[in-house]
Amino acid sequence: MTNSSTHQPGWVLAVDSGGSGLRVALAPVPSAGDAAPAAGADRADTAVSRQPVRTGPGGIDAGHLMEQLVPMANALLGEAGGDGKDIRAVAVGAAGMATLGDDLREHLPGALAEAFGVRRLALAADAVTAYAGALGQRPGAVVAAGTGMIALGTEGRKWRRADGWGHLLGDCGGGAWIGRAGLDAALRDLDGRRGGSALLRARAEEFFDGPVTELPGKLYPRTDRPAVLASFVPEVARCAADDPVAAGILQAAALHIAEAAAAVCPPETECEVALTGGLFGIGDALLVPLKEELSVQLPRARAVSAEGNPLDGAVVLATALALDALALPRDGRLLHVPEGSD
Amino acid sequence: MTNSSTHQPGWVLAVDSGGSGLRVALAPVPSAGDAAPAAGADRADTAVSRQPVRTGPGGIDAGHLMEQLVPMANALLGEAGGDGKDIRAVAVGAAGMATLGDDLREHLPGALAEAFGVRRLALAADAVTAYAGALGQRPGAVVAAGTGMIALGTEGRKWRRADGWGHLLGDCGGGAWIGRAGLDAALRDLDGRRGGSALLRARAEEFFDGPVTELPGKLYPRTDRPAVLASFVPEVARCAADDPVAAGILQAAALHIAEAAAAVCPPETECEVALTGGLFGIGDALLVPLKEELSVQLPRARAVSAEGNPLDGAVVLATALALDALALPRDGRLLHVPEGSD
Repeated sequence: MTNSSTHQPGWVLAVDSGGSGLRVALAPVPSAGDAAPAAGADRADTAVSRQPVRTGPGGIDAGHLMEQLVPMANALLGEAGGDGKDIRAVAVGAAGMATLGDDLREHLPGALAEAFGVRRLALAADAVTAYAGALGQRPGAVVAAGTGMIALGTEGRKWRRADGWGHLLGDCGGGAWIGRAGLDAALRDLDGRRGGSALLRARAEEFFDGPVTELPGKLYPRTDRPAVLASFVPEVARCAADDPVAAGILQAAALHIAEAAAAVCPPETECEVALTGGLFGIGDALLVPLKEELSVQLPRARAVSAEGNPLDGAVVLATALALDALALPRDGRLLHVPEGSD
Repeated sequence: MTNSSTHQPGWVLAVDSGGSGLRVALAPVPSAGDAAPAAGADRADTAVSRQPVRTGPGGIDAGHLMEQLVPMANALLGEAGGDGKDIRAVAVGAAGMATLGDDLREHLPGALAEAFGVRRLALAADAVTAYAGALGQRPGAVVAAGTGMIALGTEGRKWRRADGWGHLLGDCGGGAWIGRAGLDAALRDLDGRRGGSALLRARAEEFFDGPVTELPGKLYPRTDRPAVLASFVPEVARCAADDPVAAGILQAAALHIAEAAAAVCPPETECEVALTGGLFGIGDALLVPLKEELSVQLPRARAVSAEGNPLDGAVVLATALALDALALPRDGRLLHVPEGSD
């Protein structure tokens, strides 16, 4: 917990890379006497690129990430009155890091050393930055839900992960799952099959601008099918008060989300469970049944608000690394800290 | 029911176009005194092309279909000692006819008149040829299930259709649905979520040759994802005797299939329900719960064997057209008979 340069604490660089682009934050390293880094720590400034980092044959393209990161970081340093050599640590969180992170793991350590002289680096799955953003370095569990759904928990020694397997193998209870169930109910109404909802059918016809018989032609040719399905979630949520089928879909989603949370909570102790991600923005239609399900499946859970977002989480990781205070479990795929980083 | 050329009854041409290629049958038109055409009627001969008909911006490409069909038909006629001018009617069944059949509906009547001088033509969705193959022209219901699942029924005046909406919007209980549920159970076992099956996980690791954590990387980059999911169905069926999770998946599939059958059965009378398609080849693991579900949801149903396959169904349609005896409901999308065809 000592810092070799307390008189010039320097900066950390935090990166959040995902399908909607690249977000970068520059934050000051707290002096050694300050409190341990927490989520939602003050940031000097952030920069955003709307261009998602390319994915190539080796996975997420390290060169393309550096091309965007270096000028963004230099601009932030310039505004803050800092210099590249003042960067003490970098944390990069990326969607797909576990499965598509080989190129990043191979090339980022050298590229960042060359660009900024920085050797302390953490490469984190987006679920890990979501965790650190929500709970800091405390034990507990985080459910991150948007189009997909993943739960991640730790008691401090190792990560437990549940779901996050994508829209055809899991992501049960996430946005694409809920939207798909809503459209299934709309088509069941058309067919006269059990489980149909006339209200969801009417909302689908309005939302997708045409009869539901046209849905296959509108959905299947797209490359962003999970996002198209998830776009229907707010309609399902709006119907839930009046429509038992829509309410049942959200009840079933709550069941699946609670199952994932229960699988990752550290055993035996009371466990903080933070819910984070855009899906929970739909509000009580999902949150009320989810809290009920959590109380049934995981009575020792205590639902808490997320302190910050995944970019905040990357700041937590980088700051901890700069202060020799990284307490979250290292893991080759979920939270990779290359040798020589600390 | 009269035939203008009883002394030279001629031939009908039947076509079944799908994802695995083009199948063509040439069948003799029965004399007017013969029994009405039935499914499984004798065929002179069949020809097969393994090249699926291309789908272009206008849907299934009529020109590409004709390029393959004309030489295949001429070869069959040559073997049978017939001539192009002896063809009395043509029926074309195609997967996607309802949504992708515009080019066929626009260009096939003229192209077939030019190639063979034939004016009697039926363009049928593959579900209609499956129906005619299974039940001939009798009222009833047919469930066609392979990778997908669709039910079609009629009392003789109009078609009722249920499901067949594809792997993201429906096809509930079909092959992709069952395979996906099996892999979900495998991943639930890995995660420690409720609903997991260690046996399905072990089978998935053997079948897909590696840990289930690699499944997303093996599935999502493919363009034939529904077929990949459905390829796991035999493993789910094999596990059902020993594994309650696998048995529960097939029970749930049976429920969905029975829901679709119940939605399309002609009302109020006893109803023949024929099960057709590759999915039912997995046997009792699915058939036993399905017959139970049918007896609960649709007690007036009588499960029968399909008399023939979709190519047989196209022969039924073409023969009925040749004899002025088409009794199945005409429908712009499901069973299109262009004006001037009869």
